Amino acid sequence: MSDRSAAQPRAGAPPPTSSPPAADAGARPARPPALPRLRRRLDLATILGLGAALLLIIGALALGGGAGAFFDLASVLIVLGGTAAVTTISFSVPDMRAAARAIGRTMVASTPDVASAARTALSLADHARRNGPLSLHPLAAATKGWPVLHRAVELIVDGLPADDAERILRTEIEANMARARTAAAVLRRAAEVAPAMGLIGTLVGLVQMLGNLSDPSSVGPAMAVALITTFYGAILGSMVLSPLAAKIDRNAEREALVDGLYLLAAGSVARQENPRRLEMLINTMLPPDLRISSFD
Amino acid sequence: MSDRSAAQPRAGAPPPTSSPPAADAGARPARPPALPRLRRRLDLATILGLGAALLLIIGALALGGGAGAFFDLASVLIVLGGTAAVTTISFSVPDMRAAARAIGRTMVASTPDVASAARTALSLADHARRNGPLSLHPLAAATKGWPVLHRAVELIVDGLPADDAERILRTEIEANMARARTAAAVLRRAAEVAPAMGLIGTLVGLVQMLGNLSDPSSVGPAMAVALITTFYGAILGSMVLSPLAAKIDRNAEREALVDGLYLLAAGSVARQENPRRLEMLINTMLPPDLRISSFD
Amino acid sequence: MSDRSAAQPRAGAPPPTSSPPAADAGARPARPPALPRLRRRLDLATILGLGAALLLIIGALALGGGAGAFFDLASVLIVLGGTAAVTTISFSVPDMRAAARAIGRTMVASTPDVASAARTALSLADHARRNGPLSLHPLAAATKGWPVLHRAVELIVDGLPADDAERILRTEIEANMARARTAAAVLRRAAEVAPAMGLIGTLVGLVQMLGNLSDPSSVGPAMAVALITTFYGAILGSMVLSPLAAKIDRNAEREALVDGLYLLAAGSVARQENPRRLEMLINTMLPPDLRISSFD
Amino acid sequence: MSDRSAAQPRAGAPPPTSSPPAADAGARPARPPALPRLRRRLDLATILGLGAALLLIIGALALGGGAGAFFDLASVLIVLGGTAAVTTISFSVPDMRAAARAIGRTMVASTPDVASAARTALSLADHARRNGPLSLHPLAAATKGWPVLHRAVELIVDGLPADDAERILRTEIEANMARARTAAAVLRRAAEVAPAMGLIGTLVGLVQMLGNLSDPSSVGPAMAVALITTFYGAILGSMVLSPLAAKIDRNAEREALVDGLYLLAAGSVARQENPRRLEMLINTMLPPDLRISSFD
Amino acid sequence: MSDRSAAQPRAGAPPPTSSPPAADAGARPARPPALPRLRRRLDLATILGLGAALLLIIGALALGGGAGAFFDLASVLIVLGGTAAVTTISFSVPDMRAAARAIGRTMVASTPDVASAARTALSLADHARRNGPLSLHPLAAATKGWPVLHRAVELIVDGLPADDAERILRTEIEANMARARTAAAVLRRAAEVAPAMGLIGTLVGLVQMLGNLSDPSSVGPAMAVALITTFYGAILGSMVLSPLAAKIDRNAEREALVDGLYLLAAGSVARQENPRRLEMLINTMLPPDLRISSFD
Repeated sequence: MSDRSAAQPRAGAPPPTSSPPAADAGARPARPPALPRLRRRLDLATILGLGAALLLIIGALALGGGAGAFFDLASVLIVLGGTAAVTTISFSVPDMRAAARAIGRTMVASTPDVASAARTALSLADHARRNGPLSLHPLAAATKGWPVLHRAVELIVDGLPADDAERILRTEIEANMARARTAAAVLRRAAEVAPAMGLIGTLVGLVQMLGNLSDPSSVGPAMAVALITTFYGAILGSMVLSPLAAKIDRNAEREALVDGLYLLAAGSVARQENPRRLEMLINTMLPPDLRISSFD
Repeated sequence: MSDRSAAQPRAGAPPPTSSPPAADAGARPARPPALPRLRRRLDLATILGLGAALLLIIGALALGGGAGAFFDLASVLIVLGGTAAVTTISFSVPDMRAAARAIGRTMVASTPDVASAARTALSLADHARRNGPLSLHPLAAATKGWPVLHRAVELIVDGLPADDAERILRTEIEANMARARTAAAVLRRAAEVAPAMGLIGTLVGLVQMLGNLSDPSSVGPAMAVALITTFYGAILGSMVLSPLAAKIDRNAEREALVDGLYLLAAGSVARQENPRRLEMLINTMLPPDLRISSFD
Repeated sequence: MSDRSAAQPRAGAPPPTSSPPAADAGARPARPPALPRLRRRLDLATILGLGAALLLIIGALALGGGAGAFFDLASVLIVLGGTAAVTTISFSVPDMRAAARAIGRTMVASTPDVASAARTALSLADHARRNGPLSLHPLAAATKGWPVLHRAVELIVDGLPADDAERILRTEIEANMARARTAAAVLRRAAEVAPAMGLIGTLVGLVQMLGNLSDPSSVGPAMAVALITTFYGAILGSMVLSPLAAKIDRNAEREALVDGLYLLAAGSVARQENPRRLEMLINTMLPPDLRISSFD
Repeated sequence: MSDRSAAQPRAGAPPPTSSPPAADAGARPARPPALPRLRRRLDLATILGLGAALLLIIGALALGGGAGAFFDLASVLIVLGGTAAVTTISFSVPDMRAAARAIGRTMVASTPDVASAARTALSLADHARRNGPLSLHPLAAATKGWPVLHRAVELIVDGLPADDAERILRTEIEANMARARTAAAVLRRAAEVAPAMGLIGTLVGLVQMLGNLSDPSSVGPAMAVALITTFYGAILGSMVLSPLAAKIDRNAEREALVDGLYLLAAGSVARQENPRRLEMLINTMLPPDLRISSFD
Repeated sequence: MSDRSAAQPRAGAPPPTSSPPAADAGARPARPPALPRLRRRLDLATILGLGAALLLIIGALALGGGAGAFFDLASVLIVLGGTAAVTTISFSVPDMRAAARAIGRTMVASTPDVASAARTALSLADHARRNGPLSLHPLAAATKGWPVLHRAVELIVDGLPADDAERILRTEIEANMARARTAAAVLRRAAEVAPAMGLIGTLVGLVQMLGNLSDPSSVGPAMAVALITTFYGAILGSMVLSPLAAKIDRNAEREALVDGLYLLAAGSVARQENPRRLEMLINTMLPPDLRISSFD
């Protein structure tokens, strides 16, 4: 707020702290800054964790001999289908689709680590200050995959006032958080439903078995089948849905932190602030060992 | 508050931003605006989710042969009746009736989606500003099914001051929320009681069976009957009551959001504000991809 | 606070909005207002709910034949006595007595419904304003059963300043809430202890049975007896104590709402405020369908 | 704060509301006030509750015959020792010792009831005002058992300024609360560990028994022994540790309330305030039926 | 903030309360103060608690004879490996490594007790005031093991302004807390996963056993093996992970308290405040029995 006064010189004299923007930008077609390490990778923690856990279970089944005995289509339908159906009751079809997409995104680590994002934000701001906001135009296409960064670049290029740019970016960050929170709520609810469906399936099997005790030799296998839904419910709830819900929440928090750095950069460029001030603001949001100091 | 000054011109000069209201309204009987997509539909998520889950269970019963063995009138009475009776202790008879009505409403998606509601609010405000508040009179009947929208139209037609209209609508929205929260609390309590009633029924069956072990061949069927109440309790609690309670809470939140848009529109008309300001206010309440811009 | 100025005319000129109080009261011995529907009734939700739940269980026992097998004095002592004893550890003897009294009060619906209470508060205030505060003296005896209403009448008759009267009534309402919260905490703790005592009793029975497996024919009955404490614990915890704790909390909230209306009335009389203002204040505390309008 | 002005008369004219302090105190060696009912008693709720619960269990064991079968040294070691060891991991050795001392204190009702404490605070303040602060000197020894009261008397005798005395007493009250909260946290953690240790002991016994099924007649007794740790864990967790943790919290709250009255008294004496003001302050902290009025 | 004025005398006259700093420091090479009891010890509560609990279990196994029957490599893999894999899903590989390091640190009591830390902070501040900030230079190496203390010494030696030094130290303390909170969250999540993995392993074993009931003599041993994963899950979750998570949280809180004292000292030296003021500030953060008074 009090920084608005710093933006006034734009109309009159050139700002003393930043180099003259538009003129230079026209003279030399300044190349946009190289964005440090901003790419999607597979999220190894999710994939290896999930894979290793499932492999361990499959190994235990194979070791015991009859791994085939653990697959039962009716049980899969009751637990998987039942969990999906019951979870849908509490939400809506679009919510369910969004949750499925969110599961897919937990396999990809699209959020850059905080230090890279901080360097990206600083170099964007620095470049915009040296060569004028318009010089960031070529970056708009390159940042398509990171919506808030993309929007921040667009807002800098469009030359929106700082308060408006910050408000727009903040709403977008909050909407991302809300979307992630809904997806995590869907998974968390499903993680509660899955063992309940497993119990219900087991009760069905138990009652059917107990009603037909005439042949004692069939008791064992019938009970084995009855227990399979409990087994599926435990795996689905404890090994898949509950950890993924926690992951979605954690990723959303990290993404909000990183997007907050782009917001700071966009506001700083629009206010034509001293680059050192932006660095200081960014550093207060970083843990001590990740702090940047480019002006020493 | 500070906008009250904007309402002063009414007494003296015609307001500059809105077209002259009452006179025009008399000259051409302006048709009320068509309300975009404001109708009740079945809530497919609730109905399909609940139906699919129950079908899965019935399928599993049929597959196992003796589906008839899963119906036991005494067990139904203990679990359904017991859950209703015990839940009534904590509430009152009217609360129970309200919860039953709330269950019915989860089958119907009466709240329009946020984007339609935003367009409705804007077009109502726009129409009232162009043709005078009285021109909305024909809409009072058409909006009967959406109480807060109906009340907002009435208040605009009656010409109440903005602060009073907003206070009345806000109390109504809060009362709706409180009603929904009570209904959800009834269902959540019932969802806790149902498995307890199932356990109690099973204990009754077990004790009766164990007291009569003389005929070993009757142990199996007796135990099957004993387990049926646990089965009913799990289905009632985990598959019906608990998801419906979550749905009621979720619907109430969306309804409060949508009704908040009507409140903004009624206040804006009563204050004779610039329509752009209403659009901006409404947009701050919408996620980015649903924002409206009718003035570009 | 800012209304204190409205009370100043008392010393000098007669207040313009209220009729002259003391003189009239002496002239015609104004009958106190009839209090609308202010009587104790049985709380049918509690009594019918509890009764129906217990009848269902007894019916299930009778249906299975050996209802007598479900009564075992030692088991009753372990579960009932143990729950009482263990709950006492966490509280004090007076707390336990207060909780017992609170259970008794859940059978009686002594709090009038909100609409009656609002009318009572308004008619008391109206009468006091027309005939002077002393004219409420005959009502002091009639309101004995509703402590806060009784105290409000006394404070009006005594002519205490508004701030003092409100402070006294507010402390009383808060003390009522605190008392109810302690009673509910006792019951909620007991509802946690009861199933634990049931489990402990069953473990005692199981260990005793397992140590004497010499006679196989006695296994069934011994195990039946062992399970009875679990049965008692589930009934005591889930069907009696937990619902009653929720009821006590709910009743205390409604009582605080109703007593808040009497507080408003007493303050309004002491401040000699315009009756319309009291009606407006009371209406902000009522849901829309219960609002009162006596001045249209 | 604003009362400091009331303390100024000390320098000049004698305060009008309180009798001249130091001079009189020298003239007649005013006996310190008799402290009303300030003594330690056994906390009957804790002792009788715990005793009755354990007696009920022992009675049930004796009734079933083989009470001796319920004592097994290895099981006692696993449950008691294991609970202590595992709880120690999360805390420190001094924390464990403090928790043990706190258990001892739950057997003693050292906190006087609120009404007695209020009278004590008032009579101390009254005496100090009549006979000078030094006249409380003989009470320092008599109040040793109640640390905050003792410290309050010392601070009055020492003549510390009101703000300092209040700060010192407040820190002491908060430190007491923190100590009690740590002790309750230790017990609550132990109450979670105890049933887990019981389960682990039972699993050990079950696995050992199942590996040696050669002699069917030993199955029963071996399983009985295996269940004993579950039995111990339930008793230790649900009947002893969890209720005592709740009691420690409750006692700490009551003690903080009572010690707050001594703080008010010490501050009032140091500020030489009107005794009626102290009575009013104390009364706002008491429930309505315990309020004191010594000036009517 | 208001203390900045106290720092102004530096420019003009020498401060009256502190001895002249830099000059003296040059004259006599003042030895840095001896740091009282600042060394790492093993955390006996963690080590003895964990050791005693495991010894008790091993003793129970040995007592029952077949201790070897309790080791099963496949079960270890399922429970240990599965818990690690599933926990990794919700976090990242660096988070897992950090949690492992945090477990190691719970074995070492590196945080000095609060009283020693208070004395350290006071003596550092005192020495810096007497001999100038530079005299602390030799201590920078000696305090390597306590990062915040080390950083505080560095900042004093560097002569940073008080506000900057406090901000840097505060961020470091908060980052420590955040790191500890993440590590505790990893362990707490793992403590939830472990029993679920145990249950899944047992279900695998049960289903395999029930499918092969042809040889009744193998039922017992097969079931024993099946139960071993539940046994491992209970030990890993209840006896190891959950207590260590609580310990990490507790240690982090104590460390933040102790580091807060170093922050106070660094700020006090940079502001050249009266040493008595620092002592008072430190004492408000200590429990009454640990307070320091070096100026009486």
